[in-house]
Amino acid sequence: MSFSFTLTHTDGAARRGRLETSRGTIETPVFMPVGTQGAVKALTHRHLEDAGAQIILGNTYHLHLRPGEALVTRRGGLHRFIGWPHPILTDSGGYQVFSLTDRRTVTEEGVTFRSHLDGSAHVLSPEFAVDIQARLGSDIAMVFDECLSYPVDHETARLSVARTARWARRGRDHFLALRARGTGPEGEPLPTPAQVQFGIVQGSVYPDLREESAARTRDVGFDAYAIGGLSVGEPSEVMYDVTAQTAAALPVDRPRYLMGTGTPADLFESVARGIDMFDCVMPTRNARNGQLFTRAGKLNVKNAAYAEDDRPPDEGCACYTCRTCSRAYLRHLFMAGEMTAATLNTIHNVQFYLDTMRAIREAIEFGRFDFLRQSFHQAWSRRPQDS
Amino acid sequence: MSFSFTLTHTDGAARRGRLETSRGTIETPVFMPVGTQGAVKALTHRHLEDAGAQIILGNTYHLHLRPGEALVTRRGGLHRFIGWPHPILTDSGGYQVFSLTDRRTVTEEGVTFRSHLDGSAHVLSPEFAVDIQARLGSDIAMVFDECLSYPVDHETARLSVARTARWARRGRDHFLALRARGTGPEGEPLPTPAQVQFGIVQGSVYPDLREESAARTRDVGFDAYAIGGLSVGEPSEVMYDVTAQTAAALPVDRPRYLMGTGTPADLFESVARGIDMFDCVMPTRNARNGQLFTRAGKLNVKNAAYAEDDRPPDEGCACYTCRTCSRAYLRHLFMAGEMTAATLNTIHNVQFYLDTMRAIREAIEFGRFDFLRQSFHQAWSRRPQDS
Repeated sequence: MSFSFTLTHTDGAARRGRLETSRGTIETPVFMPVGTQGAVKALTHRHLEDAGAQIILGNTYHLHLRPGEALVTRRGGLHRFIGWPHPILTDSGGYQVFSLTDRRTVTEEGVTFRSHLDGSAHVLSPEFAVDIQARLGSDIAMVFDECLSYPVDHETARLSVARTARWARRGRDHFLALRARGTGPEGEPLPTPAQVQFGIVQGSVYPDLREESAARTRDVGFDAYAIGGLSVGEPSEVMYDVTAQTAAALPVDRPRYLMGTGTPADLFESVARGIDMFDCVMPTRNARNGQLFTRAGKLNVKNAAYAEDDRPPDEGCACYTCRTCSRAYLRHLFMAGEMTAATLNTIHNVQFYLDTMRAIREAIEFGRFDFLRQSFHQAWSRRPQDS
Repeated sequence: MSFSFTLTHTDGAARRGRLETSRGTIETPVFMPVGTQGAVKALTHRHLEDAGAQIILGNTYHLHLRPGEALVTRRGGLHRFIGWPHPILTDSGGYQVFSLTDRRTVTEEGVTFRSHLDGSAHVLSPEFAVDIQARLGSDIAMVFDECLSYPVDHETARLSVARTARWARRGRDHFLALRARGTGPEGEPLPTPAQVQFGIVQGSVYPDLREESAARTRDVGFDAYAIGGLSVGEPSEVMYDVTAQTAAALPVDRPRYLMGTGTPADLFESVARGIDMFDCVMPTRNARNGQLFTRAGKLNVKNAAYAEDDRPPDEGCACYTCRTCSRAYLRHLFMAGEMTAATLNTIHNVQFYLDTMRAIREAIEFGRFDFLRQSFHQAWSRRPQDS
């Protein structure tokens, strides 16, 4: 096993660690840019390396539909196919198929769904999600879980937690069978034999169910654990409370991954509650919509106030965009519909997220995390540049 | 005057030269990527610098409408506004406004047109085209000419050549007045006091009219000369003949710019006829449509034949895309509608065009241009990868 996690510092509940994978070390807390279909939207991999990205996320649902995991395997796995030599985490596809509300049927076996691309019928099950990810050859695979929307009543959530636990067992058993055999589902060589698998805790916003789900997921026994079912519309304070409670119910010696989160404030608040890993489309999606994250708050480049503003988007940022572009230029490119605007904005937002994580890691090392966290909140509340 | 042109080598009619501008030296023959609205579509400036771009083109029509030359002047001129410290050539806007066939009225004074963006009314005249470009502060400004479509009858073309000559005189007089005064149209400081102005020869495909237009444009006297009204739908052989004839009618000691051309084959054939400068949207536009230019011919990345092709697009190319991406990956990104596909394809096509020009320059220096030209045609005709 080339997978290990070392906790190097703690500062309150905040943790500074080092996750070793067969493709290199990941310093935690870490933010993982989302490369849905094998690319982080509007960026090349070089932009990600320049920003210091340590690991990216790929979406099993999207890659299964197009180009298909069989093709990816024939290319030598996802890393070789897309030319990204660093770690990759793949989700299980669960979140996407459950989002297809009107296009899916859930049974104990798994989920039958129709593709958002062409309406073709597909099935995703705990075992098949393992197979797809084994064939993609990500470094970290996620177990297939049932993803609930928000709000949901307690009884529905209770039944779902039970199903997620049964699916976790099936998914883990299948994963371990492949690992023991050292080959893929049809005996083929695995692109990433050292792949590890994370379990996912569900339970909506109910403390008893989160407790139960954490216990049952730990009972199954995964390489590490994630918290799912948050950032789905619940109030921030609720998310923070559930995160704190769930994180505390997870093993101290394994990284804790809060899926699909979040705003910069969410990153600080979740690290403060013991989270080590994050992913979110917010920096990339908002960039394409003209919203930049800066040390002084959010900045909407389409705002007329920036038409003649010669300052960089974020005077404290060293990214290519901030080094070479004014707000006036970025606004012009955005208003003119130039694709380059999406690239420049995304370069900055990804750098901002990764810089934030770097600052958080350093602060934890020096026992100054809470000071950094308060400074961040003060800067963002004192001067919200734009809503 | 910091503008000078030195012819360093000739090889048949092909010319190798050096164009000195206040923002640096341009080695000719040169291809100028088109940065319509202040950005070369899908690229950042760093991509252009990596590819070795010496000069880019900006479109006066587009920049006048959005963000407007007044704003650009207040930002310190186009170079500072867009963060491109190397030379910029601006067209006069003539080509664009004449393309608005149903939205413009031509009089001796100039052209009244309605914006393609919001229908608002605007006027472009020989004098105003000078003013706008002075305010943008490009290094090379183009005179405002009448652009004819193809085909056009001899009489219409004759009248047009006469008008283009009268407009050339007005545009040149106005340009020289600003130059003498050393300020912009309202006495404001000029972003690029060393700006030079090129005249444009028209005359459609009629040798007598091309002869006349060349003579009248030379009589006005510009810093250098361009050939307009080609690459507008005429057969290649006609374009080559008109190019050869017109180039021969232009001063030997000034660079010759063939506007809006062309395919890689057009570059070779036009250099062979004495052309020094080119611009064209083909490498960038075709990239966004999935067409790559390679040493072995054109390659359409959407072709199913590339779905499992692990080779780079062009095995002889050292661009970022060819160093890091397979055809299979580029096809996947294109089919998946990822913006990154446009960026990666454009990086390659621009590199291909600039590599082609570098190879042409070197071949001329060694007296081997015709050998290179024949090798190119053989490679492209022997194995046209895709249509």
